[in-house]
Amino acid sequence: MTRVQELYPDNKIILREVGLRDGLQLVKTFPSTEAKQRWIRDEYAAGVRHFEVGSFLPAKTFPQFADVRDIIATVASLPSACGIALTLNERGVNEALASGVAEVATVVSATEEHSQANANRSRESAIANVKRLCELRDASAHKPVVNSAISMALGCSIVGPVDPMEVLRLTEKLFEAGVDMVAIADTVGYAGPRQVGELVAAAVKIAGTRPICIHLHDTRGMGIANASAALDAGARVLDGSLGGLGGCPFAPGATGNVVFEDLVFLCESKGFKTGIDIEKLIAVRGILQSEMPGEALYGGLARAGLPRGTAAKAA
Amino acid sequence: MTRVQELYPDNKIILREVGLRDGLQLVKTFPSTEAKQRWIRDEYAAGVRHFEVGSFLPAKTFPQFADVRDIIATVASLPSACGIALTLNERGVNEALASGVAEVATVVSATEEHSQANANRSRESAIANVKRLCELRDASAHKPVVNSAISMALGCSIVGPVDPMEVLRLTEKLFEAGVDMVAIADTVGYAGPRQVGELVAAAVKIAGTRPICIHLHDTRGMGIANASAALDAGARVLDGSLGGLGGCPFAPGATGNVVFEDLVFLCESKGFKTGIDIEKLIAVRGILQSEMPGEALYGGLARAGLPRGTAAKAA
Repeated sequence: MTRVQELYPDNKIILREVGLRDGLQLVKTFPSTEAKQRWIRDEYAAGVRHFEVGSFLPAKTFPQFADVRDIIATVASLPSACGIALTLNERGVNEALASGVAEVATVVSATEEHSQANANRSRESAIANVKRLCELRDASAHKPVVNSAISMALGCSIVGPVDPMEVLRLTEKLFEAGVDMVAIADTVGYAGPRQVGELVAAAVKIAGTRPICIHLHDTRGMGIANASAALDAGARVLDGSLGGLGGCPFAPGATGNVVFEDLVFLCESKGFKTGIDIEKLIAVRGILQSEMPGEALYGGLARAGLPRGTAAKAA
Repeated sequence: MTRVQELYPDNKIILREVGLRDGLQLVKTFPSTEAKQRWIRDEYAAGVRHFEVGSFLPAKTFPQFADVRDIIATVASLPSACGIALTLNERGVNEALASGVAEVATVVSATEEHSQANANRSRESAIANVKRLCELRDASAHKPVVNSAISMALGCSIVGPVDPMEVLRLTEKLFEAGVDMVAIADTVGYAGPRQVGELVAAAVKIAGTRPICIHLHDTRGMGIANASAALDAGARVLDGSLGGLGGCPFAPGATGNVVFEDLVFLCESKGFKTGIDIEKLIAVRGILQSEMPGEALYGGLARAGLPRGTAAKAA
């Protein structure tokens, strides 16, 4: 069994907590290392196994990720847990590979315009970097999973609508470059469920047995509807953040990722077993509230609780 | 063409603004009559045609609906607009029929337990009352549309899960009693999209050419996902309230109806033409904010605006 099959068994729904990275990308205050560790341990106890924990970016600019190695170690100490770290350049790649993190994530833009504006490079150059990352992975001791996201895959903050054929072409190119999985990201929350369903169905077909991850933002209130459409289209790996923590640099005032606890409720209501205890998960919001009292948290389940008569869930 | 076919043409998506009734059911302060009239006129200018405007309940207990006749007259003055008033007893029915309102709405509970607890009568007795309402309609001068909602149709605040076969049985009974349309209500926001899709598909089949209305609450963040599933299952009439205004007497702290402007975005994103201009609709929130500064308003579109590159919509 390969590393990716071990961490992403294809007969299971996998919900990934990205609040510790994407959720903290824009915050002004952020949790202490100790609080992040409690956040992870408490969610692990609730049944969560996949955590995006930080990025290898300059600690001067992103002090919230200065402790990324400690957090990677925390996740690594938990049986069957998968820590994920974001890298955007070769220095970061090397640091990530040296950290022993289970999964290295990177990003290419769906549009040439966003790639140039955001990363000052072409998409071809970005894919060449992904290929280099995969080569370094192959030469590394522990061979982490490599995951490349396609940002702006469902709409671009610069050019607006995105041709789905371009996203599918990039998906193929990324698999050719050697990634283990591709994440399709609605970075600015432009999509509706029909668009998500159509793109995901086609991407899942290209991927075959390799995982496609769906990364949605709830910017325009479509997050859960889009997640539902992605599940219907065959997606089995989805991202969310506790309380919908996080904003978006391209959409000021926007909310963050899909609310993790609502995503769990959605999956369970559709008959997909997540292995996650919603009530235990909701209780973890207390850590975020006390560490970041100025950050808005969202979510229906936290507000209203489980419906009467909901069977208790085993974690 | 019958009255119901005229107000609910079956080749169109119809989104109904229920904020002036359901949205105001629990508020402590409420808009002046003049502000309600602006609310209606401004939404009408944005393309909205169906408005639930109030209920014939004792004005002492529900002062927010004391002006229901004036508001009915406001809607009646707008070409092709449909005013809807709620009635819960025979006195209310007679007043509603006398008011000349285009549509009279009433409610039966999906469960015997909720019917007894909430209305102090059996479901059989409630259906007998609906039959009597339909007879009075037939004998009336202007013969309004009669719409009965089935509350708690997707989960009950007293007994929890609800057997969908019971809801379908009640749907048939209500059509037999003479109603023109049936509304399926997730009163306490218990449902997920799979449950909504399955129930709506079956109800639409029973209804044939008669409209089925879907009335969803966003209590657990599933509102838009459930609306999307209802559309996929063949629903063509859906309720929402501007800014998600409104709470629920059975779920303290819960949000209200599906956010109307997000519902419009959902429909348009799925290729259903609503005839509603989202930006004009969002601007109407200003009336609610100035008239009810203490009420929380929700919604992704109001927060983030339309995506870049969205074609301007004709109202």
